[in-house]
Amino acid sequence: MTAEPRRAPAGAAVLREGITSALQQAVIEELASVGYGRLSIEAVARRAGVGKTAVYRRWSSKSAMVLEIVAEVAAQRLPLPDTGTLRGDIEALTAILMLALRHPLFSTVVPDLLAEAARNPELAQTLQEALRANQQEIGRLLIGRAVQRGDLAADTDPVLAADLIIGPVYWHLAVTRTPHTPDFPQRIAAMVEAALRSTG
Amino acid sequence: MTAEPRRAPAGAAVLREGITSALQQAVIEELASVGYGRLSIEAVARRAGVGKTAVYRRWSSKSAMVLEIVAEVAAQRLPLPDTGTLRGDIEALTAILMLALRHPLFSTVVPDLLAEAARNPELAQTLQEALRANQQEIGRLLIGRAVQRGDLAADTDPVLAADLIIGPVYWHLAVTRTPHTPDFPQRIAAMVEAALRSTG
Repeated sequence: MTAEPRRAPAGAAVLREGITSALQQAVIEELASVGYGRLSIEAVARRAGVGKTAVYRRWSSKSAMVLEIVAEVAAQRLPLPDTGTLRGDIEALTAILMLALRHPLFSTVVPDLLAEAARNPELAQTLQEALRANQQEIGRLLIGRAVQRGDLAADTDPVLAADLIIGPVYWHLAVTRTPHTPDFPQRIAAMVEAALRSTG
Repeated sequence: MTAEPRRAPAGAAVLREGITSALQQAVIEELASVGYGRLSIEAVARRAGVGKTAVYRRWSSKSAMVLEIVAEVAAQRLPLPDTGTLRGDIEALTAILMLALRHPLFSTVVPDLLAEAARNPELAQTLQEALRANQQEIGRLLIGRAVQRGDLAADTDPVLAADLIIGPVYWHLAVTRTPHTPDFPQRIAAMVEAALRSTG
């Protein structure tokens, strides 16, 4: 009997979290399906199986909803295995990026948001801050390890290093979508390693 | 008097070309302003100062019109000055790319078309073929000069070389839009030169 008053709010909190998570999933799916321009709160609510009021209880507008969810998703960290060598780490990151770029989130949702960002400064800022924070962490982790191993000079620029790995992979696979040979990660890794060593 | 019959068709041809060129300009401006999804033939005709029939006389549909004009624009060659050294050529290309990426065509129209391409296979193919052809020519010209100068091995891959230059510049300036120092072209050129020499 005494547990009863506590059990009800706990159940409500779990339900609230479940709805928030279903709405986040629904927003990503709607973005992939129709894009930012045609996304409606009605369709998001329908896809999540809740009423529109459940959306408005969490976010004041479509833009606030998308901004928050996009920031969370774009801030998700890629795994970055420690292979023991700089070349191996770059190869692994390249292979992971290649997989990530095949996901609808990167092949459809990100291009769509980048297009919208050209006309929506608030979205541009949110998206770019999340991408930059992500890139900085990738660069720092990768270069940090290489500096510790004695492979690179301590003043190697982690942002430029991440540009040199992510840029060519993104351009090749997500923009020009040029077919590539299976040794693409190895070739990128060999060239980027040489580039980074040259700055030491 | 004898020139009269010839002058009329010549005048008509000039007029036709003038209208085509005004329509091309109008399509690019409309794409920059409202994007592919909201672009209408009415608005293009209005912007070009002609009637809708002038559009339909040239293209059967909005998609055919945009495809043709996008292919032409995306195939436009960037100037690629011969500076006498590989490092100088990469620096010059980087600086030219940085300027091009500030133009509304690249900052607004291309991201918009890439987003649309994720849902429109025909547009994707046209856009990507034009970008690839452009990239191949840049790579071949740049690497060809370096091979002739004896700076690079004859089997250096021109597509991968262009990826290594264009990719980081595009990612840094057009995607994450990270602020950069004035020596960005020099730093990119030093690293990419080392990367390319390492494959020889």
